[in-house]
Amino acid sequence: MAQQARAIKTRRAILESAATVFAERGYERTTIGEILVRAGVTKGALYFHFASKEDLALGVLDAQMLDEPMTPQSIKLQELADQAFLLAHRLQHDALVRASVALALDSGAVSVDRAAPFRAWIDQLSEILTVAKARGELLVHVDVTDTAELFSGAYAGIQTMSQILCDREDLLHRVAVLLQCLLPSICTPALLTGLDLTEGRARQLAVEYDASKLRREG
Amino acid sequence: MAQQARAIKTRRAILESAATVFAERGYERTTIGEILVRAGVTKGALYFHFASKEDLALGVLDAQMLDEPMTPQSIKLQELADQAFLLAHRLQHDALVRASVALALDSGAVSVDRAAPFRAWIDQLSEILTVAKARGELLVHVDVTDTAELFSGAYAGIQTMSQILCDREDLLHRVAVLLQCLLPSICTPALLTGLDLTEGRARQLAVEYDASKLRREG
Repeated sequence: MAQQARAIKTRRAILESAATVFAERGYERTTIGEILVRAGVTKGALYFHFASKEDLALGVLDAQMLDEPMTPQSIKLQELADQAFLLAHRLQHDALVRASVALALDSGAVSVDRAAPFRAWIDQLSEILTVAKARGELLVHVDVTDTAELFSGAYAGIQTMSQILCDREDLLHRVAVLLQCLLPSICTPALLTGLDLTEGRARQLAVEYDASKLRREG
Repeated sequence: MAQQARAIKTRRAILESAATVFAERGYERTTIGEILVRAGVTKGALYFHFASKEDLALGVLDAQMLDEPMTPQSIKLQELADQAFLLAHRLQHDALVRASVALALDSGAVSVDRAAPFRAWIDQLSEILTVAKARGELLVHVDVTDTAELFSGAYAGIQTMSQILCDREDLLHRVAVLLQCLLPSICTPALLTGLDLTEGRARQLAVEYDASKLRREG
């Protein structure tokens, strides 16, 4: 394995261990020592990647953001939907993404900047919506910031509810319902019929994402 | 003070203390003894109202539900909006309601039935939507359960985001944005213009609620 690939694997293993310990012990009570034991790495290896427990928290929080660029779509709003579907897939199948969202929503983690992931999502959605607006895809009354914030908050809530009610088993369906309810309120009617907001789309994206991930991590 | 009124006050004081200790210590680590100290009541008084710590948790969770019936409206969907606005007001001004929602969303509280409050909200919204459907207020494609679940989940998320970003200062605005985005996707166009989904409505309801509460607790 090339040195860089090994470093990426080690970094991820440390993050996964940190995330697990944060979830089990609560962030505030977790010590670096406990993370070292769980990860089975040396102090030197951990500090090569992360300067402090706060830095580890930032790394865990960052893991919920998409790790590769979205495939551009002819209708920009399709990218907003695709991103939502992909996050649902990653929440279902990637423990680190689940731990990241859990940490962001953990009201006991008082010394963590839990606003940062919300701001990152809002920024990313605002960018998509701004392009969509420039292309004439949005209804005239739509406020980009309000919509980006609504979508981030609503998404955070439906994934929490799905987790609590059924361990996220129905998350793709819930995300499809959210999109099918939200998009008609922001998208021009002419383009709306061109969007694919179905669970079938979600499953197709998941297959492509997994294949691409396998290639990258090969 | 009549005996019944005093009992209600004591019960609420115990619940508030329990909620505070749950939030500070985490539900799992909290002992009944700690709640007794905080509430300043005797063991006998506490056990008169609550059989166990689990029973206290149920009482705290239950406090987020509206404590008086909604005023009936000529358009049923207005009641859905009014309920959302009133909860926002209560989240801003009632520490027990905040603690109740925090406990329901606390992933560390593993021995609490955190699904119960979600189910209670979904049931209540489903009832409103079912009446709205029977009255012909809903667009034909609307699925009552999907919509009730979407709304409960989305609401839970936007209030969490509002708390994290600004201590719920902008919550009335965010709830108005949610309603203004959601309702056009479920309500017939003819009735939509008859709905008041503005922050002004939220403020008016808050004033009426506070006055009614003062009368009840006189």
